[in-house]
Amino acid sequence: MLRVAYDGTNYVGWQIQPNGRTVEETLNRALSELTGEAIQVIGASRTDSGVHALGNVAVFDTESRIPGDKFSYAVNAHLPSDIVVRESFEVAPDFHPRHAACIKTYEYRIYNSSHENPLMNRYTYFYHAEQDIEAMRRAAAFLVGEHDFASFCSQGAQVKTTVRTIYAAEVEKEGEVITIRLKGNGFLYNMVRIIAGTLLQVGSGAVPPEIMADIIGACDRTKAGPTAPPEGLTLVGIEYGSGEVNQVDTV
Amino acid sequence: MLRVAYDGTNYVGWQIQPNGRTVEETLNRALSELTGEAIQVIGASRTDSGVHALGNVAVFDTESRIPGDKFSYAVNAHLPSDIVVRESFEVAPDFHPRHAACIKTYEYRIYNSSHENPLMNRYTYFYHAEQDIEAMRRAAAFLVGEHDFASFCSQGAQVKTTVRTIYAAEVEKEGEVITIRLKGNGFLYNMVRIIAGTLLQVGSGAVPPEIMADIIGACDRTKAGPTAPPEGLTLVGIEYGSGEVNQVDTV
Repeated sequence: MLRVAYDGTNYVGWQIQPNGRTVEETLNRALSELTGEAIQVIGASRTDSGVHALGNVAVFDTESRIPGDKFSYAVNAHLPSDIVVRESFEVAPDFHPRHAACIKTYEYRIYNSSHENPLMNRYTYFYHAEQDIEAMRRAAAFLVGEHDFASFCSQGAQVKTTVRTIYAAEVEKEGEVITIRLKGNGFLYNMVRIIAGTLLQVGSGAVPPEIMADIIGACDRTKAGPTAPPEGLTLVGIEYGSGEVNQVDTV
Repeated sequence: MLRVAYDGTNYVGWQIQPNGRTVEETLNRALSELTGEAIQVIGASRTDSGVHALGNVAVFDTESRIPGDKFSYAVNAHLPSDIVVRESFEVAPDFHPRHAACIKTYEYRIYNSSHENPLMNRYTYFYHAEQDIEAMRRAAAFLVGEHDFASFCSQGAQVKTTVRTIYAAEVEKEGEVITIRLKGNGFLYNMVRIIAGTLLQVGSGAVPPEIMADIIGACDRTKAGPTAPPEGLTLVGIEYGSGEVNQVDTV
């Protein structure tokens, strides 16, 4: 299992597709070069074009005798500088990163100031209207729990159910950076970015915090705010239960 | 007067030169487009290739009737996204940003971890050897005061004197990021980067903190550590005394 960090700016997302460079194909190529095998990773989260990650997860099968915990160092030599494998270890052969139960943490970051900051542009969404953080927090609190989040799902997604559980929805401000942090057992297509777009409408005073309950209840994408742009979004990490990821002793 | 922020990654520094794009020429072009005049800015700090700024300072003369405090908004429309004028106001015509007394603040940031982080690579220097922060602090304390900093000056610099005053030299660690923050009345060529390179030798345990006193006393560049790379360095800001910058009321 690999924990993978990437700057998504120059990628059209995780999943292999014809119209541009993806993280998945770049990882496959690096691992294949390293092992001499035709490696195909299975990723936990198919992040979208321009979205960043500090800890996406990928697994693959290999005959290689490189110890699991040394793979990160070995594969990084074959990767461009905007993708880094930060940790690696062996897991049970039947572990599947999308089927195993997990907690995913996403952060959406907003640079909230009268003027842009060129040192923040790459990893935050610049939004100049002053935000009421307390109102954003009150709105975010409605998200916590098991809900049908159909209002926060872009069309075109094929999922069995739009019910998800959010364990935590925090809004913090430090200096000029607002961070929206969501922990949940799964997220629908564009869900975090639509939540961010909705919270910015609340923070700007355009709608009251209580509208969040109505939006969730409506199960209608048109009731929620706009999809905030990808540069503000980072998949921070994915935690699996210790029973799920059976770290295999490689010695 | 303009307070200018930039991501220095794609520039060969501030000062106009034949072999690449500079911040100064990009600002001149944007201001000339905006005003219809041939504008030439005078910058406070000629930052090096790849060095970033949150608050470099530039001044220029103009006949434009755009109010001083509106210049920032107007000129940003003519600038690429990696240069942003964050503040503008009118100053006395005889104000010169390199001759007026000031306090400059620089930060050198190090990403100190076993693995690189692609979301930090652009604005930090990746250094994997674990650092003793307390030792770095003790070494940094020797820098404070008025000293001849010739040991921390790259060759090729033409200056009348290598004596400078450092008002504060702080070392902080937050998560995996070490920040070296220096405040002084002026800095020699590569001075902050050589100090950073020396503090990393101390932090790694290669030399004791007390060696800093010997290095300062030697006035010999070969006694100090290597010049740390530019991506970790940011000119945070420049403060002028209120008597120096006579902000002119433009109403």
